[in-house]
Amino acid sequence: LEIYNPVVNRRRFLATLGAAAAFPGRLAGAPRRDGPLRINPARLQSQIERLSEFGRPAGGTFADGVSRIAYSDADLGARAYVTSLMRGAGLTPRIDPAGNIFASASGQATSGGRGSERPILFGSHIDSVPSGGNFDGDLGSLAAIEVVRTLNAAGVRTRHPLEVVIWAEEEGAAYGRSLSGSRAFAGQFPADELALVVNGISKAEGIRRIGGDPDRLEQARRSSGSFHAYLELHIEQGGTLEKAGLPIGVVEGIVSIHRHDVTVRGFANHAGTTPMNERQDALIAASQLILAIREIVTREPGRQVGTVGKLEVSPNATNVVPGVVKHTIDLRDLDAAKLSRIGDDIRACAREIAAATHTDIEVVRVTQHDAALAAPAMQEAIGRAADALGLRSTRMPSGAGHDAQMAARLCPMGMIFVPSVGGISHSPRELTAWPDCARGADVLLETILLVDKMADPA
Amino acid sequence: LEIYNPVVNRRRFLATLGAAAAFPGRLAGAPRRDGPLRINPARLQSQIERLSEFGRPAGGTFADGVSRIAYSDADLGARAYVTSLMRGAGLTPRIDPAGNIFASASGQATSGGRGSERPILFGSHIDSVPSGGNFDGDLGSLAAIEVVRTLNAAGVRTRHPLEVVIWAEEEGAAYGRSLSGSRAFAGQFPADELALVVNGISKAEGIRRIGGDPDRLEQARRSSGSFHAYLELHIEQGGTLEKAGLPIGVVEGIVSIHRHDVTVRGFANHAGTTPMNERQDALIAASQLILAIREIVTREPGRQVGTVGKLEVSPNATNVVPGVVKHTIDLRDLDAAKLSRIGDDIRACAREIAAATHTDIEVVRVTQHDAALAAPAMQEAIGRAADALGLRSTRMPSGAGHDAQMAARLCPMGMIFVPSVGGISHSPRELTAWPDCARGADVLLETILLVDKMADPA
Repeated sequence: LEIYNPVVNRRRFLATLGAAAAFPGRLAGAPRRDGPLRINPARLQSQIERLSEFGRPAGGTFADGVSRIAYSDADLGARAYVTSLMRGAGLTPRIDPAGNIFASASGQATSGGRGSERPILFGSHIDSVPSGGNFDGDLGSLAAIEVVRTLNAAGVRTRHPLEVVIWAEEEGAAYGRSLSGSRAFAGQFPADELALVVNGISKAEGIRRIGGDPDRLEQARRSSGSFHAYLELHIEQGGTLEKAGLPIGVVEGIVSIHRHDVTVRGFANHAGTTPMNERQDALIAASQLILAIREIVTREPGRQVGTVGKLEVSPNATNVVPGVVKHTIDLRDLDAAKLSRIGDDIRACAREIAAATHTDIEVVRVTQHDAALAAPAMQEAIGRAADALGLRSTRMPSGAGHDAQMAARLCPMGMIFVPSVGGISHSPRELTAWPDCARGADVLLETILLVDKMADPA
Repeated sequence: LEIYNPVVNRRRFLATLGAAAAFPGRLAGAPRRDGPLRINPARLQSQIERLSEFGRPAGGTFADGVSRIAYSDADLGARAYVTSLMRGAGLTPRIDPAGNIFASASGQATSGGRGSERPILFGSHIDSVPSGGNFDGDLGSLAAIEVVRTLNAAGVRTRHPLEVVIWAEEEGAAYGRSLSGSRAFAGQFPADELALVVNGISKAEGIRRIGGDPDRLEQARRSSGSFHAYLELHIEQGGTLEKAGLPIGVVEGIVSIHRHDVTVRGFANHAGTTPMNERQDALIAASQLILAIREIVTREPGRQVGTVGKLEVSPNATNVVPGVVKHTIDLRDLDAAKLSRIGDDIRACAREIAAATHTDIEVVRVTQHDAALAAPAMQEAIGRAADALGLRSTRMPSGAGHDAQMAARLCPMGMIFVPSVGGISHSPRELTAWPDCARGADVLLETILLVDKMADPA
């Protein structure tokens, strides 16, 4: 009857046919498809490669990564490039007061017949950390545009309007506050943050520089229910998919993060004249606590993680017994209650260590980010999209923060992960194989079509 | 017969009488003594208080300590003050090419009859660490001058000429190299050290500033056998004497110091996306090693100490698993062989930790200072002097370095310790009770008289 693609199994093939049959908006004259629509992998690759030139180290190559700090010249150049790509794909970009680029797809139906469907929003970010890689954010941003271009070329009309977003300052490398654009979108941007100044430039000036309007920042805020759904394709930034040999991760949610600051106070004294049994060595106490934190975090099953990443010793001299050690604790899990329990266990353990080492240990919780769960129907849709494409997938948490966690405050959210080679990210060595990039974009496209058919993908 | 001082027990009293009877140089007309000579405690205290004004923080008091970095204006002012005290005590100061102040006591016999006795040298230093205290170095320096003044006032002549020394740049706070003056004296000053530049001033210029002559630095070197003995009174800088309730420490020697640099290489990765069992966390490995070092150092009896005082984490960010940790190890004991054994044990343990934590640990020995043993006869003399003064004493190592370790290369060396309140040193809170200062000076004086009678105090 139709040409059978042996890569796609019969069940998925039929499901796809069924989806196509149920599809309300195929344009007259559009080519018939023999399976799921596919994006153009070569075009996506060449656009990622072209984008990598903005913020590339002088004299470097693609492998040298990018430093594309938000609000920088590199960021401005990249935004202009991406905006031109949007126009070429039939999108109409506009910049909101926070500097986010929103672009609606004129080629798709703005309504599926009922006239007032809410848009499906999808996209990512293009700012980077210093010495970052070419895939974190870039892949999801350019794949979003490529998906629209592919749908337009295939003459596919959706019931829900499609809208692409490039979020402003996701990384927080400029002012130490991440998810700036999406926080403004979700009404989570405190006004005093505009006054932050780095290198003589305020955040307000930075936002103005990329075309935003800090004076009207409140108007960047969108209300709950403004969108049918939010989708984001992103690299995993960890090694789970690669180790499992799976091309697609279905994100269950973005973890809750509890951060604590620890101060261990001992007594600084001469390293030569203070007998071992009379020391109040803050680094001995801190070392015990660091090992205890790892033990506490790993002693119950689950994917929770705990990290002591930053540590400072005072006075930090070869010949002085450490008097004070300050260090951070970063705890992450989808289950905030588990994190609170771990925090309590750490505090109890710190008290024991303090008593045993004759030190004083203070553990203060400094920030607590809520977990953002992906909507079950969105997870289901991503899984089905991967199936339809013959791609094996697994459910997994996102240990990193993403703009999706802000979007999840307004509408059902879903995230698609693709493998990171070696689990490396925030590094020029960050890499996702080109076929994996294309597979992720295909799943994004297919998921959009599935979500488009849902009444409420929550 | 004579007034009996009940504080001094009969045995000591008689021993002192015996010492006085054997004394070769009591001047005609000098007052008879009813026990050991004593320095003037009030005068010593007032001179220490006056000296504390050089380098005192603006608007501060004695309790605010001093920052009297070598070669600074504060150092220059203090040296001028001490030189004036020397002259007032009947000493004739001169500055050697390294900037050390040597002062011979004209009031004492330059020979005890044989015409060619070598001098007894004693003194300390007056430079300080930044935010240091008023006793480290200052006590031994001013006590040396006070001893000469007391001997002169008592009309005591010694067989051996007496010579006071104020060593230049003991602390090494200026150029990061301690014992500069005494190293030049012992021929342990590498010529290239003169070229060190800090704050735009070379060490050569610094030495010139305090009256030395860097072009003739070789001439500061004295040959072995130039002196009959070297003595130094110093605060303990640890809490052993105070805890034991003893006023006098007889130093057995200045410890050997072995320093190691440790580099732990793991892999820096995202604190959210890297599962616990896939981490190569350099700080976990370092924490294990730090605790192991303490265990290895303390598992055999003795006074050896081991310290990890300086530690740096890279990249040192809250949300990044530590990739590299660098830290120091400072090991001290009188027995260098014990330190080598401990170093070997640490290296073996580091190999095990590296294997277990999937890290690479490099342990490199960077410096190795030899121990400087006090001459047994000098220790014996100090103990006898304390006995004669009714002061209980204990033998103990010096965990800190001192100019005495350089002097020990040329002649028999002895050091006298007095208690540090709370064991605190290199701090404005450094304190030795005034009566303990006076007791130390008295023991210095008495020891000089005992050593003066020895043919060879080795």
